[in-house]
Amino acid sequence: MKVIRTVKEMQGVCLKLKARGKSIGLVPTMGALHEGHLSLVARARKANDIVVVSLFVNPTQFGPNEDYLRYPRPFNKDKELCKKAGVNYLFAPSVNEMYPEGYLTYVQVEKMSALLCGAFRPGHFRGVTTVVAKLFNIVQPDNAYFGRKDYQQLKIIERMASDLNLPVTIVGCPIVREESGLARSSRNQYLSEQERESASRIYRSLQAGKELTEKKNIHSSRRILQKVTSMINEIPGAKIDYVCVCDADTLEPVPAVKHPVVIAVAVWVGKTRLIDNMLAGVK
Amino acid sequence: MKVIRTVKEMQGVCLKLKARGKSIGLVPTMGALHEGHLSLVARARKANDIVVVSLFVNPTQFGPNEDYLRYPRPFNKDKELCKKAGVNYLFAPSVNEMYPEGYLTYVQVEKMSALLCGAFRPGHFRGVTTVVAKLFNIVQPDNAYFGRKDYQQLKIIERMASDLNLPVTIVGCPIVREESGLARSSRNQYLSEQERESASRIYRSLQAGKELTEKKNIHSSRRILQKVTSMINEIPGAKIDYVCVCDADTLEPVPAVKHPVVIAVAVWVGKTRLIDNMLAGVK
Repeated sequence: MKVIRTVKEMQGVCLKLKARGKSIGLVPTMGALHEGHLSLVARARKANDIVVVSLFVNPTQFGPNEDYLRYPRPFNKDKELCKKAGVNYLFAPSVNEMYPEGYLTYVQVEKMSALLCGAFRPGHFRGVTTVVAKLFNIVQPDNAYFGRKDYQQLKIIERMASDLNLPVTIVGCPIVREESGLARSSRNQYLSEQERESASRIYRSLQAGKELTEKKNIHSSRRILQKVTSMINEIPGAKIDYVCVCDADTLEPVPAVKHPVVIAVAVWVGKTRLIDNMLAGVK
Repeated sequence: MKVIRTVKEMQGVCLKLKARGKSIGLVPTMGALHEGHLSLVARARKANDIVVVSLFVNPTQFGPNEDYLRYPRPFNKDKELCKKAGVNYLFAPSVNEMYPEGYLTYVQVEKMSALLCGAFRPGHFRGVTTVVAKLFNIVQPDNAYFGRKDYQQLKIIERMASDLNLPVTIVGCPIVREESGLARSSRNQYLSEQERESASRIYRSLQAGKELTEKKNIHSSRRILQKVTSMINEIPGAKIDYVCVCDADTLEPVPAVKHPVVIAVAVWVGKTRLIDNMLAGVK
């Protein structure tokens, strides 16, 4: 496995691979890798000649009062995990390499970027789509892998890739959970043991919402929201940013489960903001 | 020469060419081709294995009260000109092909897009950068050719390509002028004979500004602006949108000619808005 630090070298390597007809799989990450990321790498390893993992804590997707500075950066551990997982190139550029002096260009997916987390984190998805567009242009992947834990991010990136005619297939992969049901996230390491116990109950609330519609045949979004919200409100130390029943494609809130929906939540547990979601109404 | 109407076919052809190691030159146009466009095609023909001309009157770069509907669309004539010029592929998609239902993504270069024409045509450059990013992703060019007549557009596209790490070289090409000095533009055909005579005097005003600094050693932007503005104000039927002495790279207005500048103007002649510019202070 080769670690590459500059855009120029990474792009040069990838353009050469493409001109030789090789397929490239990209797994974009902010590092602090966990089993969720590794499941994406395994998926990429199976379907591509070359696997590139990018590791970049992207400042443009953090708000001014968010956790950019304290976001975990265990580089050597991440590097070992990638090596073991059969990654060919680990692309780990500096901030200045990605956003040099005079940088001015942003990629924005309208509407979808203002919903759900977008309402609480203005500019977040603009930062995500900008850096992902840049990574796609640098790495020239045939396939790019994203976890469904960040469901809104996945749908926005699918929209961007389609709208901008990027020649890449976006592969959405299942949420990987801890035994307790807690969705794996680099931010879980901010949690105390007690908070981690609280956080695992978010999953059970989503399950209860899903069962309401799929087993008890209740289709009213209001009823589902009531159930999920009341269960989360019972969790010690939990504070809801949103609970929403949304169209699984457009992410617009829907009044009833007629087509596939995603039940999406953002919940603060202590000082840590967690997101999770569950598809429902999928026949 | 092959005419291609769909994104899928054009992108398929280009990805195959790239995988075979061929170089591609792209000349993006809105059609109504004139000698300016043909000079770009000739330049592309010399430096690339394959030349693609795109022909698309891009609705997202026109304001609501602009000339989108009456913009000339002489397709058959354009096609013949491309064929004669040795173009390999003429890419002429429909609006629905480029902006299908549910389209939401825009590429924006901040600051530079708000200056000069950006102040008079809000959203114009966002439309330009969006469609050019799409065309780059579809055609995968090694080189893309733009005329310096649209100087601000050229600099914004250079910025976008660099910021988004697009693996393309942006080639800026000299302004092609009529014998009178009038910069060639598809919009010149809106002009009456008398207006065309008026319009040619814009060039002479720019020349006078350039001479002031390069021959008479006057570096004050105010003095140059006075000269150019007063000469344009003497043209019958002319109405100035702006006259500006700007840094040739950042396009910011500068108080004095210390580094290379561009003297840029937008002038209405009757109901036709014309732009022109001239570099000055280049040693």
